[in-house]
Formats: sequence, C-alpha cells, structure tokens
Amino acid sequence: MKLYEKLADEITEAVRRGVFAAGERIASVRQASQQHGVSIKTVLHAYALLESRGIVETRPQSGYFVRDAAAKALAPASAATRAGRKSTPPQPAPATVDVSRLVLSTLRSIRAHDAVPFGSPYPDPSLFPWRRINQYANAIARRHASWNLIDDLPPGNPELIRQIARRYAENGLPVDPGEIVITLGATEAINLSLQAVAKPGDTVAVESPTYYAMLHAIERLGMRAIEVTTHPVDGIDIDALATVIARQKIAACMVMPNFQNPLGFCMSDERKRQLVELLAAHEIPAIENDVYQELYFGDTRPSTLKTFDKNGLVLHCASFSKSLSASYRIGWALPGRYRAQFEKLKFLNTLTTPSVPQVALADYLRQDGYDRHLRHLRRVYRQQASIMSALVLRFFPVGTRVSTPQGGYVLWVELPARVDAMRLYQAALARGITVGPGMMFSTRNDYRHFIRLNYSYPWIAQAEAALKTLGELVTAMA
Amino acid sequence: MKLYEKLADEITEAVRRGVFAAGERIASVRQASQQHGVSIKTVLHAYALLESRGIVETRPQSGYFVRDAAAKALAPASAATRAGRKSTPPQPAPATVDVSRLVLSTLRSIRAHDAVPFGSPYPDPSLFPWRRINQYANAIARRHASWNLIDDLPPGNPELIRQIARRYAENGLPVDPGEIVITLGATEAINLSLQAVAKPGDTVAVESPTYYAMLHAIERLGMRAIEVTTHPVDGIDIDALATVIARQKIAACMVMPNFQNPLGFCMSDERKRQLVELLAAHEIPAIENDVYQELYFGDTRPSTLKTFDKNGLVLHCASFSKSLSASYRIGWALPGRYRAQFEKLKFLNTLTTPSVPQVALADYLRQDGYDRHLRHLRRVYRQQASIMSALVLRFFPVGTRVSTPQGGYVLWVELPARVDAMRLYQAALARGITVGPGMMFSTRNDYRHFIRLNYSYPWIAQAEAALKTLGELVTAMA
Repeated sequence: MKLYEKLADEITEAVRRGVFAAGERIASVRQASQQHGVSIKTVLHAYALLESRGIVETRPQSGYFVRDAAAKALAPASAATRAGRKSTPPQPAPATVDVSRLVLSTLRSIRAHDAVPFGSPYPDPSLFPWRRINQYANAIARRHASWNLIDDLPPGNPELIRQIARRYAENGLPVDPGEIVITLGATEAINLSLQAVAKPGDTVAVESPTYYAMLHAIERLGMRAIEVTTHPVDGIDIDALATVIARQKIAACMVMPNFQNPLGFCMSDERKRQLVELLAAHEIPAIENDVYQELYFGDTRPSTLKTFDKNGLVLHCASFSKSLSASYRIGWALPGRYRAQFEKLKFLNTLTTPSVPQVALADYLRQDGYDRHLRHLRRVYRQQASIMSALVLRFFPVGTRVSTPQGGYVLWVELPARVDAMRLYQAALARGITVGPGMMFSTRNDYRHFIRLNYSYPWIAQAEAALKTLGELVTAMA
Repeated sequence: MKLYEKLADEITEAVRRGVFAAGERIASVRQASQQHGVSIKTVLHAYALLESRGIVETRPQSGYFVRDAAAKALAPASAATRAGRKSTPPQPAPATVDVSRLVLSTLRSIRAHDAVPFGSPYPDPSLFPWRRINQYANAIARRHASWNLIDDLPPGNPELIRQIARRYAENGLPVDPGEIVITLGATEAINLSLQAVAKPGDTVAVESPTYYAMLHAIERLGMRAIEVTTHPVDGIDIDALATVIARQKIAACMVMPNFQNPLGFCMSDERKRQLVELLAAHEIPAIENDVYQELYFGDTRPSTLKTFDKNGLVLHCASFSKSLSASYRIGWALPGRYRAQFEKLKFLNTLTTPSVPQVALADYLRQDGYDRHLRHLRRVYRQQASIMSALVLRFFPVGTRVSTPQGGYVLWVELPARVDAMRLYQAALARGITVGPGMMFSTRNDYRHFIRLNYSYPWIAQAEAALKTLGELVTAMA
C-alpha cells in the first residue's frame, strides 16, 4: 500500500469511529505533513483520495472538512453509544440485581432521553449559585499564577477545611479541623471509610432500603452486605441490628441517620445515641453518610452520630454536592481514629482533590451568602415535597403510600403490591419520564413495588402532567 | 466571660489545633469584626489580649501574625501534622521502605519549606496556559446555567473524549474513542487498571526503579510487586521479565515505556513490540503509564505499547497533568478488553470526574493553541535538561552519573556509593532545597545513593546556587 493510501485509510477510519465529526475541519495539509512525518505531496494525494471517496470536501479559504453524509454513513450507531453520546435503553433487571449496573443504566437513561427527571438522584442544579462560585474559580487563576497542586495535597486546602469546621461549630457541632480530609465527593469519602475499617470478605451491616452508594462501596471492595430492617420514621431497627451483631461478625455499619435516602427519616438524638453506644460496645465502626445535612425542613440542623461518638469509631462523610455544587465533586470525611489510614488511602486513591474547586468553594463559603442560599433551597424543597406527596396520593391508585421526608429531596413511594417497578420504569421511560426503581436500594431484589421520586426540580405544569401519566400507568398495572 | 475574652480564647484554640500556623497572618481587625459579628473595639481588645499572652505579634504595615513560639508551644506536633500545614521531617527510612509515606512526606516538605523544588514530581505550573483554560471554565457557567453532572458520567464528556482521540490520530496512533474512559488524573487510571485485571495477593511485575505511583497502586490493592531490572536506555529487561514469568504467576506488568520516571528512557519500537508479544504469549495484561507522551525531545511523538497491541491486553493510561494542567486532575485510560470492568470501577470509585475541568479542557483543545504551547514546553524542558545535566556534572564529585532523558522533566542521578540519599535529603532540606530520594522508586530499599531532580522550574541564578550547594553536600558525604 502506498503511503498516501495508508494516510487516507487512517483518516477514513477516524471518521468512521467518530473522531472527526460531520462538518468538522481536519488538519491542514501543512499540519498533517508535520504530524504524520510525510511530505506535503503525500498529504495532498491522500486528501484528494478522500475527496474522491466522498469522505471530505474542500471549502475555499478554509480547508478540508468531513462531509456530513460521510460521517453518517461511516459511523455505526454502536460506536456512538460506546463513546457515551447516546445510550441504549436499560435492560430488564435480572433475577439477582446488579445494583451498580442498574443505577448506571438509570442515570444514563435520564441523560439520553432528556426525560422528566423524577428518577434522578441529583438535585436540580439550577437552584445552585453557579455563577458566584464560578466567579471565585475564575479569580483564582489571576491570584495564583504559579499555583501548584502540592498546596492542596491531602488532607486538602487548609482554608476549605477551616470553613467546613467553622460551619459545624456554628451549628453547635464542634469538630477538630485536624480531623477533616477533603475527598472527591461523598462517594470517595464513603469508599475510603469502608476500606479503612474493613477488608475483602467482611460483612457490613446496612439499612434496608439503603442508599445504593453504600452497596457500591461494599461491592467495589469485595465485601458482603447484610440488610437490617429500617423503619420509615425511626430509622434503623436497633434491636434487629443487635441481633445481627450477636449472630455474626460485623466489620462495619453504614447508615444515613439524617434524611435517609430513600426513606427521608431523621433519627432522633436518643436513637442516634443508642446506635453509637451499641456499636461502640462491640467496637464496630460506624460509617455515617450525612450528605443531606444542610437540607433540613425543621428549624435547626440535626445532630449526627459524630455528636455522640466518644471513641473515634464514627467515620462521618459529607459533601457540598447536594447543597452547593454537584459537579465540583467536593466532599469530606471526619474519619475519627482511622484518620491516618484514611488520609493515606486518599493519597493512594486519587492523589489529591482538584484544587480549583476547593479554593473556589472556600472563597465562596468565606465571603458569600451560603446561608441565604440554603434558606431558599430548604424552603423550595419543603414546599415541593408537600406538592409531590399530595399529587401522588391524588393521581396514584388506592394502596399507594408515600414517605414523609424530614429533609432532602426524594420521596419513597410504595405502589400496590402487583405493580412491578421495573416494568413501570420501562413504560414511564417510553413516555419520557424516569423513576428510581426500588430494587436499586437493596441487594436482595426487594422493593419491587417501590419507586423513588426526586422533587428538587421546579414544579411546573409539565411535572404535574408527568406525575399524572405515572399515576395512569400504575393504575393500569395494579 | 467578656466577648473579647471569648474571641481571644477561640483564636488561641484555633492556633492550638493548627487552624492558624506559625507565622501565618490572622484576620485583620476589620475582617475579624465582620466574621465574628462583633465590634472593631472588641476585636482590638481581643488582639491586645492575644499579644499579651504571646500568641500573636503585630508587624508594621502587615497585620497580626501567629508567633512561631506560640504555635510550637500550643500545637502538639501530631496536630500540626494532621492538619497538613506543616510536616515533621521524614524519618530515616525503615528496613522495609513504606513508599507512600516517604513520598507524601517529601511532597509536604516541599510545600512547608517553600524550598527549591528539585524534589517535586510535578512540572512547573507557571509554564501552563492557566489563564486561557480558566477563561474556558468561566465561560461554561454562562453557557450551561442548568448544567448537570449526569451529562459527563463515565466514560466522560463526549467532546473531551473526541478531542483526545483526535490527538492520537493526528500523531499517527489511531485509537477507538469508544475505548476511552476519563479519570481523575492518571493516578485513578492506573489504580482502576490494576484493579480491573488483578486481585489482592496477586504479584505484579514492575520496572526497577519504578515510578512510585505504580507501587502505590499495588500497595493500595494489597498486591505484591516484583521488580524487574530496567536498563537506563533500553528500558525493562525483556529477558529478565521472561525469566520472572517462567518462575511464577504474574497477574499484570506495569511499565512506563516513554520517558520513564525516573530514568527518562524511551523504549524503541522494536522493544515495545517484543514486550507486548511476550506478555500476550502469557495472556498477561500490560498497564502502560504514558503521562509524559507529549513531552518528547525528538521530532515526533513516540509509539506506545497500545500501538502494538493486537489482543486488547494493554491498558494505556495518560493525563493532561504533565502537559497542560496538573490541578485540573484530568486523565484517561484506554483499557482494551477490560473496558467494561474499568468503566464500572470508575463509577464505583468516584462516581464521575468533575465536569467543569472536562468541558474546559475540551474547549481549550478544540479552539486554542495546545500544539504551540507544547512546542514551547518541549523546548524549555529539553534546554533545562541539558543545563541541569551539565551543572550536576560540574558541581558534584567524581563518581556521579546522570541519566540522559529523552523527554519529560526529571533527571536521575547516581551519587558516589557512600552517599546516603536520605541523609542528603535531610541536609538539603535544612538548606531549603528538596531532592527526590531514590528509595521512593523501589520497595526493596534500593537506590540508596540515587536522587531524582526536577528540571522543569525556570533556570534562574537561585536554582544554580542551590545545585552548587547540593554538590557541596554530596562532596562532603562522599
């Protein structure tokens, strides 16, 4: 094969693979000559061949462009899917639920279908103070021309750590700033916490239903989950947990005492204290997911397990993702007596958390109206929680029950027992609506007639219509 | 207690906890008044009390600073260390080197001492196009008011993936964009690659000396490293590797064929092909660290192991951290036949890579002068490599040998055998100079008389003086 044919074939292949999109300019003759280490003449030959094949076209004064028709004809749908442009509809759930696969496929379907996002686990980002935070990020480049990632190695940016400690202190929950380690969102905080206290093969107690990130952490580390009955108002059943502990060795207990996802309860101080004491009596570390800490509907921020921890056995995990900025991915942990191990794991896992978001959030927290923003957010969520509850009860058939969230932005809905949430999920998706199927919240294939609904998005006519459609689907299935 | 006493006590407590470090300026009177919601007069009283207690001192025209003595007296060493502001000098290496602890302590000492950063593993950020990239990041907030992290779930932002694939194609190394997964820097790419192909207890072959991130990944996952002789010009000894493979089960082989850190060699195409074929014959996955791919000193970008991979056994890892932006933490992997598992692990490990940096880098790559920036960077590094080599040979005693890097920004220096690199590291640190002790690059406590020097920082008189000082220290120890 001649050199120019080889070059032409490479470019054709690149178009086929979607590397060059329809209408996009490819390298100039001079650039291509340098890049491929071939003569100008070879490139000209290759480009002429591509033109004759209908792959590229010349535009006067502009260069060579990929022809629309060529890109469409060459690019197989599967390549586009694999590049993450588009996703196939999720498959029906297998007998044994692979929680992480189901979750990822649900998330993708939300993106792909531009659907009504009742199934989304994330808060509506339009309520977040994007522009303000970004202004701080932009200012950083000017302030720190030679600014270096060494500055913000684990445990993290000192000023951000100080601001986080200050918020706890201001809410009457004093913590030692020296205990805080910044992470890549609460996801990493939970993962590293579990890795710091348990090893592959260990058994970990979780709530049932439980937030699936907990199950992911367990799956990722090759551990086993044991699910403990959890009351929709009181939280994890402490007697049931005691029975589990008496029967087998439990390496850790993962819970979400405040505004649990999906149930929405807030454990009382008394129950939090009992839980901490039960676990301490058996030297079992507690991993506390407190990501909704700022999203309370009551008058004040609730306590945490950490509040009652005398032994450093509580690893407290939180983030700004649910209250300030999901895409900045800034979380933190207070890992108690496991801090040294946790910090080392953080360093090994991702080296450091990106600095720009850390510094930008620290600046925002120090200087801007975080409390005002939160007051607004809480008011909106509280209001939308009652609207959605009322409408579910109006549109859904008899036998439907809904949770009473004390904070956060998700509603847990029990459907009539005959309704299969996975079938509902598919049928709703076909109508441009997503829901969170209950099976995501258990490894036991439980909660087949439950769904989780996100009420953080603005409550407009379209959302009401979507909920009405859901109600009709459920009624038809019941 | 009076208000000003309460404020003074709070600040004392903060100093004790390391929230304010020795020599650090505390809030101005006006700032403190705003932050604590007290009058200017109260703050002045509180600061006077702190001065009288010897906690802070005033400096004319500058403000209030924590006194060194106060911080030392109040802050227990462990607290300061835990807050990460300051680190104790590293301990002499134990018989078995704990590589990650040594590395972290080296990094911290660079930060704490504001030292000449010969020991830094990172490139000088002042050569990076900060302002340009940040302008793109800033523009994103305006474009995407309701912009959502679901958009950039694994595998990552589609446009960034396309831009990365395009760069490979333009360099004559075509890849399938559908194979690319965006990660949190190369660190995560390497970690997840190893986790995708091997399990705890497995043995992994690495170069010797090897880049310590490889050793970290192995340590993190509870695997064992076996070090294979590596030639400073040719790269890993393929015969020696074959012998190792014949003797025991190897789960993976981790290498850095281009501009290896610390040796700086670039394996020839022929050796790369031989390596890929040897591993393929035994079905052993190769994890290829190609983070310096753009930092070549020759005319064109070298090939990769991926270039020769016919079986999908090469997991190719790279990032923008060494060539465009270290603190944005954007890396990627081409995980070959392990792609599905890799993508799932990415999702479980950190959910998603922050979106702002992904979109900002995609915009920069599409629109801006990345190639021009890289040409400049390569020219500077190549020049500084020869300056540093020449000066090391001039200032250091007979018996010193230096590597001849083919790319990247680190020099590997063999000192006379009697010099202990750990002692040199300590002595240099006391003079405000850091070096990378050789023991970081092996788990066997090897390379005790080797150091790694970073030559990416601007070559100014101060750097030359620092190198002269190093030479004197080495001469005294030899």
